[in-house]
Amino acid sequence: MNFEYSDRVQTLQTKLNKFMEDIIYPNEKVYKQQLHSGASRWKIPPVMEEMKAEAKEHGLWNLFLPESEYGAGLSNLEYAPLCEIMGRSPIAPEVFNCSAPDTGNMEVLVRYGTEVQKEKWLKPLLNGEIRSCFSMTEPQIASSDATNIEGRIERDGDFYVINARKWWSSGAGDPRCKISIFMGKTDPSAPRHEQQSMILVPMDTPGVKVLRTLPVFGYDDAPHGHAEIEFENVRVPASNMIWEEGKGFAISQGRLGPGRIHHCMRLIGAAERALELMCKRVKERVAFGKPLADQGVIREHIAESRIDIEQARLLTLKAAYMMDTVGNKEAKGEIAMIKVVAPNMALRVIDRAIQAHGGGGVSDDFPLASSWANARTLRLADGPDEVHRNAIAKLELKKYQSEVVPN
Amino acid sequence: MNFEYSDRVQTLQTKLNKFMEDIIYPNEKVYKQQLHSGASRWKIPPVMEEMKAEAKEHGLWNLFLPESEYGAGLSNLEYAPLCEIMGRSPIAPEVFNCSAPDTGNMEVLVRYGTEVQKEKWLKPLLNGEIRSCFSMTEPQIASSDATNIEGRIERDGDFYVINARKWWSSGAGDPRCKISIFMGKTDPSAPRHEQQSMILVPMDTPGVKVLRTLPVFGYDDAPHGHAEIEFENVRVPASNMIWEEGKGFAISQGRLGPGRIHHCMRLIGAAERALELMCKRVKERVAFGKPLADQGVIREHIAESRIDIEQARLLTLKAAYMMDTVGNKEAKGEIAMIKVVAPNMALRVIDRAIQAHGGGGVSDDFPLASSWANARTLRLADGPDEVHRNAIAKLELKKYQSEVVPN
Amino acid sequence: MNFEYSDRVQTLQTKLNKFMEDIIYPNEKVYKQQLHSGASRWKIPPVMEEMKAEAKEHGLWNLFLPESEYGAGLSNLEYAPLCEIMGRSPIAPEVFNCSAPDTGNMEVLVRYGTEVQKEKWLKPLLNGEIRSCFSMTEPQIASSDATNIEGRIERDGDFYVINARKWWSSGAGDPRCKISIFMGKTDPSAPRHEQQSMILVPMDTPGVKVLRTLPVFGYDDAPHGHAEIEFENVRVPASNMIWEEGKGFAISQGRLGPGRIHHCMRLIGAAERALELMCKRVKERVAFGKPLADQGVIREHIAESRIDIEQARLLTLKAAYMMDTVGNKEAKGEIAMIKVVAPNMALRVIDRAIQAHGGGGVSDDFPLASSWANARTLRLADGPDEVHRNAIAKLELKKYQSEVVPN
Amino acid sequence: MNFEYSDRVQTLQTKLNKFMEDIIYPNEKVYKQQLHSGASRWKIPPVMEEMKAEAKEHGLWNLFLPESEYGAGLSNLEYAPLCEIMGRSPIAPEVFNCSAPDTGNMEVLVRYGTEVQKEKWLKPLLNGEIRSCFSMTEPQIASSDATNIEGRIERDGDFYVINARKWWSSGAGDPRCKISIFMGKTDPSAPRHEQQSMILVPMDTPGVKVLRTLPVFGYDDAPHGHAEIEFENVRVPASNMIWEEGKGFAISQGRLGPGRIHHCMRLIGAAERALELMCKRVKERVAFGKPLADQGVIREHIAESRIDIEQARLLTLKAAYMMDTVGNKEAKGEIAMIKVVAPNMALRVIDRAIQAHGGGGVSDDFPLASSWANARTLRLADGPDEVHRNAIAKLELKKYQSEVVPN
Repeated sequence: MNFEYSDRVQTLQTKLNKFMEDIIYPNEKVYKQQLHSGASRWKIPPVMEEMKAEAKEHGLWNLFLPESEYGAGLSNLEYAPLCEIMGRSPIAPEVFNCSAPDTGNMEVLVRYGTEVQKEKWLKPLLNGEIRSCFSMTEPQIASSDATNIEGRIERDGDFYVINARKWWSSGAGDPRCKISIFMGKTDPSAPRHEQQSMILVPMDTPGVKVLRTLPVFGYDDAPHGHAEIEFENVRVPASNMIWEEGKGFAISQGRLGPGRIHHCMRLIGAAERALELMCKRVKERVAFGKPLADQGVIREHIAESRIDIEQARLLTLKAAYMMDTVGNKEAKGEIAMIKVVAPNMALRVIDRAIQAHGGGGVSDDFPLASSWANARTLRLADGPDEVHRNAIAKLELKKYQSEVVPN
Repeated sequence: MNFEYSDRVQTLQTKLNKFMEDIIYPNEKVYKQQLHSGASRWKIPPVMEEMKAEAKEHGLWNLFLPESEYGAGLSNLEYAPLCEIMGRSPIAPEVFNCSAPDTGNMEVLVRYGTEVQKEKWLKPLLNGEIRSCFSMTEPQIASSDATNIEGRIERDGDFYVINARKWWSSGAGDPRCKISIFMGKTDPSAPRHEQQSMILVPMDTPGVKVLRTLPVFGYDDAPHGHAEIEFENVRVPASNMIWEEGKGFAISQGRLGPGRIHHCMRLIGAAERALELMCKRVKERVAFGKPLADQGVIREHIAESRIDIEQARLLTLKAAYMMDTVGNKEAKGEIAMIKVVAPNMALRVIDRAIQAHGGGGVSDDFPLASSWANARTLRLADGPDEVHRNAIAKLELKKYQSEVVPN
Repeated sequence: MNFEYSDRVQTLQTKLNKFMEDIIYPNEKVYKQQLHSGASRWKIPPVMEEMKAEAKEHGLWNLFLPESEYGAGLSNLEYAPLCEIMGRSPIAPEVFNCSAPDTGNMEVLVRYGTEVQKEKWLKPLLNGEIRSCFSMTEPQIASSDATNIEGRIERDGDFYVINARKWWSSGAGDPRCKISIFMGKTDPSAPRHEQQSMILVPMDTPGVKVLRTLPVFGYDDAPHGHAEIEFENVRVPASNMIWEEGKGFAISQGRLGPGRIHHCMRLIGAAERALELMCKRVKERVAFGKPLADQGVIREHIAESRIDIEQARLLTLKAAYMMDTVGNKEAKGEIAMIKVVAPNMALRVIDRAIQAHGGGGVSDDFPLASSWANARTLRLADGPDEVHRNAIAKLELKKYQSEVVPN
Repeated sequence: MNFEYSDRVQTLQTKLNKFMEDIIYPNEKVYKQQLHSGASRWKIPPVMEEMKAEAKEHGLWNLFLPESEYGAGLSNLEYAPLCEIMGRSPIAPEVFNCSAPDTGNMEVLVRYGTEVQKEKWLKPLLNGEIRSCFSMTEPQIASSDATNIEGRIERDGDFYVINARKWWSSGAGDPRCKISIFMGKTDPSAPRHEQQSMILVPMDTPGVKVLRTLPVFGYDDAPHGHAEIEFENVRVPASNMIWEEGKGFAISQGRLGPGRIHHCMRLIGAAERALELMCKRVKERVAFGKPLADQGVIREHIAESRIDIEQARLLTLKAAYMMDTVGNKEAKGEIAMIKVVAPNMALRVIDRAIQAHGGGGVSDDFPLASSWANARTLRLADGPDEVHRNAIAKLELKKYQSEVVPN
């Protein structure tokens, strides 16, 4: 394994870090104020579009997209340290057009989209003009087993008719969200992993109804939002099908690999920021006659956090390296591992930082509590820990010949 | 130790449980809807006062208050199973006039209040006509060490003049909140634990300014709220002093014991409810060909939760028994222990339940995420874990003769 | 629940504690020296029989045996604090004729033995003249599922013929071990839980061959020992059958309940002693300019140990109380819980004490390392943690109506 | 960072793995039998010298030694995967002349030894003709703070006179152990880190008395052994001083870095072997109607073990890389981190494997229990976890300006 960063990556790191210092951090408060100040929280704070313009100008745009005619051409390993930096601020990924679920959706369109689909949806997404959502999870079933998904996509002449109840369609609260990638069953009688398809559903299609957005530990995550959506007899042209019928699982394998690792990279950034805040705080505060920074338990927590972060970063880099060199499929063990490791690591690190901040830690005076809430969802999103651990174990056990001898 | 429940307690348990089933659980949604529906979230949903009236009628009122002319006369041990039941619903404690910080404040007034103070503040509190807050924690210092508190109370003729910035004055967001018990320094030159006093500050006194309420994770906890309050040249009559100058720590020792254990009792109830929800959920949901309830890891989580709850309940009962029999001071080790155990236990139990609920778990469709957020604050409120663990260790080490021999 | 100790129990506690101080602790080294000094470690250090005589004289004998014509008549709850005291020293339980597996075996004989069996085996066991072992676990199968057990007991006229390979027959290394209770299959075609029987096998029966004793970590546990035994065409009179054919599981339910809880009581004693040693040690030693006792991390470990012990003890008492009041069968949830809690608790507490002792902790200069090894086996003996957790979860889930709706 | 393995390293890996399969694993039992069979356990099983000869012949000798006239010239990063392989078997490191404490001692002599010292001690050590020990830790003080060390080295003409009680001089039980590197105080009045010196003490010098060897969780670790040694008026020539007076700490900084990381590499190998054994075992055993390998909790344990190992290995590689590129001093944070991570990781992984093996796991039928005991000592040896965590935290806190403002 070679985790060396190329000159190009190092230059981008420097630029990104400077952009964070100059533009992102100072605007975190501005963004929040603009968001709170309007009549509704479901509109875009103007500072966001200003920052996006600036990022584009600095060439810090669409860095997530691997080599292709559309992208920055960075490998996963090259993108990792950049994505980590973006993860330090909740508002940063969007600024660089590198935020979920758009990144995953754009990758799907790059890989599997028709020219017409690309022209219509990929282009404005790449330009940051529109946003998108991904509609897979359903409220009435255990979506951790994706074969449970029941939403229907039925052919009707030149159209498909869609009926489903979806939730956790993140980003659907955003007024700029124009398109959803929808996963559902085209053929319930096909083999288990060929029943599902993915299809493009414009959000303004009649029958698409955002019922509500779901809070996450009290956070509405406006203007992004996590929507529950009803699809009632939604008719879309047959040409909106992605790749072809029955390829839902095949696409999602490709889609979820990078999506998962991006989340992990960002979580490492979030953890780094939490540890930084913690260190600064404990140097400032005195209790029982000495700075918190001199108290043994606090030091133990700092050390454990540094250890946690280092290990998670290295495993993320290894997973990225594997994806780049042997492909997402061969790297599935490593992807599953970081998908378990990174959120749990971040939760521990952030929780220790919260504790060191006292009451401030659970409030919004620091980005800790919201960062924790976000990390907590990532023990569920894209597959719960338990499912990934099971997959890791199966790969491990496969290394050995089965030797079960009936008692 | 005798943890047997008297007939009276068993009768109250039965009544309370029935009240929960008949009145509280069905009204949780109503309460939430009424809260959301108005122009502001900082007013009282009418259903709350209706439920309070009903509870009073059923004799389920002020159960927290130990034997005295005012109270139900239950010991801590007797109150424990009742308080636990109330802890199952976030809206329940107020219904029975048993919610923090009123309970602690009422106890202070019962024990240390003058007749005039009692008439003016204790009586309406006991009647559930007004509410109160407690102003101790300060944003600019590490309040985990209470001697750090800097707020000033200065004598000026027949008045005291108060200047301070306080936060986490929980309940101050409530329009019915009329009185604050304020802790601050009367004599900075006195011995370390005699510098502080507690004094009654009516919320409508000129100079008292609620600056904002602090969210907990994303929850505003309206209409209760956790306020940051500025006290600027607030003048209150000298007769508002509680007990006498310099007794702040002495009062808080008495106040915090019961307050802490009440939190723990409620947390056990919250954990029981989370486990109940988890068990029901995993019996309903199927993944990978069998109910979640039949999957080994889920079962392990259920078992661990049951074990966690049982142990925390027993330790809470022991602490209550000790408080009843040897007094709060002698029971300080046990109080410190449950103060560490109960929130951490609840966090683990609720977190497992969240995980089993998938996306639903982090949303507000179940009381899990908000319950988790509340439990998280209780690793900080009334002293962070670290301070309590240190106190427990000191008591343990005191059992042995010091034998340090310099190397 | 009433955990109050009667006068009789308090008197016994005082006597036991005094006996520990006067006789047991001072003789720990003597015992070890006598054990090491001979040609073989598989003989009894004379001091053991001397201490036994003394204990008998003091009326501290067979305290484990519940009310019956043979026993001390203590309930499980009454025995708990006494057994805990014995658990403080590895050599103590035998001194009071309260050590495994004799206690369990004696209980089986009291409950299910014929008069002849009692006369021949129970009486000398009660007198401490002989010792016994229990032969259930088999090396070639997963004994955690007891239905896997394959050892055969076949009727042949007035005899049974036994063939099996057993291991972890603890105590079989002892030259005084004269009798084994053997579990095996009499009828492999019977219903799953009626295939097994228990039968008495004198150790000197032809065909009984102790192949070796197994070390636990590096400890041989001489002269007790954990034996692997071959039973080859071992013929015992049909009258050696306990209760009747097919009752193996029924007996083991009765046998294992008290056996399990005794282990837990002793583990609490072992943990208390470890914590005591830790506290004394950290007061004595100085590092980086102050006693270890003043260092935050050490204090945290002490507090966590105190908390761990308190909770485990209370849960053990509750389990004992349940066994006394509703019976072993109804108390099976509580028994399973302490069976999981106590060994894990003890391992944590002892491990922290080891760490505080530095190199001394892993050696035999302190009873910590051997105590840890013993506790580690108890996460496996009498059922591994995983099996007990599964049982606890099943009981928990049973509280709710099954509501699985196929997706 | 570049963790790529050179062709040379890959060739060595292949050779080593083959040697393990062909020679080491099959001889583990032979070694044990030879050790047990003699009159004393404190002599060398002949198979050891046979294997050493074979390893030398295969060019698998002294691989630990970095570029120098004496060594294999591998960097730490290159040695890591090789050392890991050796760590899979407790008897392997010695076979390749790569076992502690000889490796550390040889490095000291290479770096700081005089030509005479090298000729006399380094040469036979490199040839595997003699062995050595390291005498630093003392029983009567907290050696975790090395400045506590009290052993005296006093100049007397052309000699130094040594008086001390040392313990945990590992390897001193070996009849081939001819030399000790002794650490003690030459000048108690010098600055704190210049009081100590290291000096060579031949084991046959009058006054050197091995009092006993200390067991580790019951294991005597013969014929290696962990000795307690009395040094009473031991006179050695002044030319035995290493480097010069007062350099004890400076040398130990250099010595302990590689020593620590070698331990970590080996622990990873030990963990890999435990996981392999676990996987094989759970595929073989059936309980409750299905192989253990199909049970959720077992799978979770396997996944956690794989995750633990991957992360620890990557962090070890990073530490090795840092040592190679920026030097041991700059890499001290990373060295401290793996020193905490590796033993704790190994303990968890091995413990899970033990649990899956049932009773077999705690016995000597598998290398698990002894491997666990060895890993446990490494949470203490070369500095306890707590000391390393404190060092890590200090480095972390140093990144930020001190900003303590007195309250």
